[in-house]
Amino acid sequence: MSDTATRRRSRGAGGGAARRAERSAISFETAKFITRNVPNYEVLTPEALDIIEANAETLLEEIGVNFVENPAALDRWRAAGAMVEGERVRFPKGMVRKLCETAPETFIQHARNPERNVEIGGRNLVLAPVYGPPFVRDGDSGRRYATIDDFRKLVKLGYMSKWLHHSGGTVCEPTDVPVNKRHLDMLLAHMTLSDKPFMGSVTEPGRAEDSVEMCRILFGEDFVRDNCVLTSLINVNSPLTFDATMMGALEVYAAAGQACILSPFIVGGAMAPVTVAGTLTQVLAEVMVGVAYSQLIRPGAPMIGGCFVTSIDMNSGAPTFGTPEAALITYGAGQLMRRLGLPYRSAGSFNDSKLPDAQAGYESANSLNAGLMAGVNFMLHACGWLEGGLVTSFEKFVIDADQLGVLHGIAQGVDISENGQAMDALREVGPGGHFLGCAHTQANFKTAFWRTEIFDHKPYETWADEGERDTRSFATALVAKRLADYQQPALDPEIAARLEAFVARRKSEMADAFS
Amino acid sequence: MSDTATRRRSRGAGGGAARRAERSAISFETAKFITRNVPNYEVLTPEALDIIEANAETLLEEIGVNFVENPAALDRWRAAGAMVEGERVRFPKGMVRKLCETAPETFIQHARNPERNVEIGGRNLVLAPVYGPPFVRDGDSGRRYATIDDFRKLVKLGYMSKWLHHSGGTVCEPTDVPVNKRHLDMLLAHMTLSDKPFMGSVTEPGRAEDSVEMCRILFGEDFVRDNCVLTSLINVNSPLTFDATMMGALEVYAAAGQACILSPFIVGGAMAPVTVAGTLTQVLAEVMVGVAYSQLIRPGAPMIGGCFVTSIDMNSGAPTFGTPEAALITYGAGQLMRRLGLPYRSAGSFNDSKLPDAQAGYESANSLNAGLMAGVNFMLHACGWLEGGLVTSFEKFVIDADQLGVLHGIAQGVDISENGQAMDALREVGPGGHFLGCAHTQANFKTAFWRTEIFDHKPYETWADEGERDTRSFATALVAKRLADYQQPALDPEIAARLEAFVARRKSEMADAFS
Repeated sequence: MSDTATRRRSRGAGGGAARRAERSAISFETAKFITRNVPNYEVLTPEALDIIEANAETLLEEIGVNFVENPAALDRWRAAGAMVEGERVRFPKGMVRKLCETAPETFIQHARNPERNVEIGGRNLVLAPVYGPPFVRDGDSGRRYATIDDFRKLVKLGYMSKWLHHSGGTVCEPTDVPVNKRHLDMLLAHMTLSDKPFMGSVTEPGRAEDSVEMCRILFGEDFVRDNCVLTSLINVNSPLTFDATMMGALEVYAAAGQACILSPFIVGGAMAPVTVAGTLTQVLAEVMVGVAYSQLIRPGAPMIGGCFVTSIDMNSGAPTFGTPEAALITYGAGQLMRRLGLPYRSAGSFNDSKLPDAQAGYESANSLNAGLMAGVNFMLHACGWLEGGLVTSFEKFVIDADQLGVLHGIAQGVDISENGQAMDALREVGPGGHFLGCAHTQANFKTAFWRTEIFDHKPYETWADEGERDTRSFATALVAKRLADYQQPALDPEIAARLEAFVARRKSEMADAFS
Repeated sequence: MSDTATRRRSRGAGGGAARRAERSAISFETAKFITRNVPNYEVLTPEALDIIEANAETLLEEIGVNFVENPAALDRWRAAGAMVEGERVRFPKGMVRKLCETAPETFIQHARNPERNVEIGGRNLVLAPVYGPPFVRDGDSGRRYATIDDFRKLVKLGYMSKWLHHSGGTVCEPTDVPVNKRHLDMLLAHMTLSDKPFMGSVTEPGRAEDSVEMCRILFGEDFVRDNCVLTSLINVNSPLTFDATMMGALEVYAAAGQACILSPFIVGGAMAPVTVAGTLTQVLAEVMVGVAYSQLIRPGAPMIGGCFVTSIDMNSGAPTFGTPEAALITYGAGQLMRRLGLPYRSAGSFNDSKLPDAQAGYESANSLNAGLMAGVNFMLHACGWLEGGLVTSFEKFVIDADQLGVLHGIAQGVDISENGQAMDALREVGPGGHFLGCAHTQANFKTAFWRTEIFDHKPYETWADEGERDTRSFATALVAKRLADYQQPALDPEIAARLEAFVARRKSEMADAFS
């Protein structure tokens, strides 16, 4: 177990706010990030890993990657010893892997409440909510375009979710706010409605600058200079293409010592080969280049490597989730990232269902279980994902968030202490007895079994009398209860006012843009 | 891969029937049983395994087990060197483990169609449907007591399920048939409506005799004497109690060289301690005694060890499924069974939901994934389970059966051949291209990705136009289609007539009993 979650430290304004928050806020229990006491599941032999790594190096030397509309990046690569022709960059074997070595194997992302700090890497698993959907769905109004009001509700649900360690980023796209101003409202929501760590904007370099600037207000300038307070999502335009927008945001964050997830967005069969080993080769090549590039900006910049993986349904062209191919890629990519010495991002509450139904449950559980077993360190999309990522579902958010507790329980492994061995109970009860009343059960039953907060275990007759509700219906009720119970974590009013003033000023400097 | 599924052999009447069946039956594709190319997931260290094994031996020496109302069993144990006092039997350390050594590590259960033979043990996983529910649920009529008509429909669905290797046993309780005659109708259904392997009756020794006798008609007397054609489910009355009914059935099957699953039925906190290590200790002790007893009856009798595990919900008293404790027990018990040299039974489509909804999907997926990873060799309840095992759901049967395909895909592991590496594709496409049209994709796309037959990947607009159906609704339609498409596998009419005559004769010899 890491000791960082309980460490106290001075951090100027942010530290003061955090201390005040701790004193005055109503406490919602949040579990510490997972530290696995169970092994990682590995499907690739050492020989297979060697082949994939050698193929990735071959790919980078022979074919290379494109850095598009980014002359400064080309200059950096040229200076570092890569072969640059036009926008194409090729790499001598071993070059990018070597550059990755300065990225840390683990790092701490700080929250304004230090109890919520997360350590990313090693045997840890940090869980963050869904990212990116333009639609929301809830029990009352069905599917519709997301608004900033939805966004704020989702941040509140995340804050109140015991098994969620991270507030995430674009938990939905607030489509009622101009596209060039959304990031300000989104960051303000994460900073003021939750005290968990959060993500920065990546849709333009200037928005990344705004994200860092707002963190300076929240945490203090000195603190942000010396510590990671943002983890942001940088997708690669697979195959093998690094565009100026994403790389521009990466440059801002790396220069500021803030973390990025370097993560190819792969639809197998479209952006990568149809085979698992071929996809892993491409993922490794892309991650190595992106992480190496961050280290050219600032050696030691914290990075997470990994992949978002789905396959294409060859009939409909739709993305698919919870498939065996996705599981194998998730396991294999974990092995590759660990050999690279990088924290690993993958998996999530992925599914292509339109509703939080059996398909959604099955596909999400398949992916979440694979993520735990694969040694994922940062799991984005751990709750709330619906319809291939087009929709954030309020109901599915609380269903998934509940089931993340299962991952916590499995990760604890088996207690083999004397109490765990329970020989006293076995001796006391003996053949034909029962354990309900024995001393060992009485001493342990409150913590012995993980308990769902949403799934139904009532007797059939009770359930029938109460209207034969399905999981969706239970979830609608839980969403309403959570939002009714929500209480905002305290924040230094001066800091809150400065954040609001910053948002107002930046908005006033821009005309509205909607695309 | 085992070669047994394609082996031809002579087996008298059964062999003739099988050969005729192969020539004349409409073929429904059934996947070969799973042979894992991926490792088992292990959560117990060698030290933890040693502790649990030592504790199990201590338990058996100090406390022992009861063999209830079974003087012949007590005589057998006395003769074998156990300490017998009343119905209590205690065992010198190492004694039962030693006796287990004659049980085979793997064995073949034969089907009347040799293409459907299954090899149980080793790296294999054989999937069988739900067992035991007194109720059924379907989309049309909801939840109601099961009938023999339901039973036959479920056998047909199992026969037509590609990823299901085994026809199972009591796929539901046909409550409209007298309790003392049900086994005859159930066996007749498995034998005539499917050509997959099946299970025998265990509810009275005489019913086990009937099961073997019907197999002699189906397969031929000589064949049944020399081969395993039945795998039957023997529960232990945990804790540490072996009743005369179950042991009587075990005695019949072991003497006939037929396989049994020796499987404690554990509700953690009630029939076993509340801790994982304590439960595993009890499971190991009970399995060792049961398997050892089978070897006293007939050394070499094929046996499967394992456990059915659920925890009690301390609020409602209901069983719970898909929990972290169940997963850890599933992983740990697999390690213990492998050290014992026994094929392993556990996991299934377990859930406590009343409907095939998100809860059912989540809990079932959690258990199925754990079962694959844990090295389970025989998975009973792999599809159709609902409401804590009170209900066989037609919809969930086809949903689960579809998702068993995911397990097949993961078990294949990663293809690291040249085609799997896909370097040609990566070279052909290059930065910014796409893989849909490349030669490698064209050559591989038909088999590259596992495909669901039930989950929905249609565009949102199509789905909305078609009535916003959930998984349950898709499943209702698939059940109807499967039953409409069903065609009975051919069976030698003379054998069919002899089976029917046997059933008629045995029924005529008994008065109806309903409890």
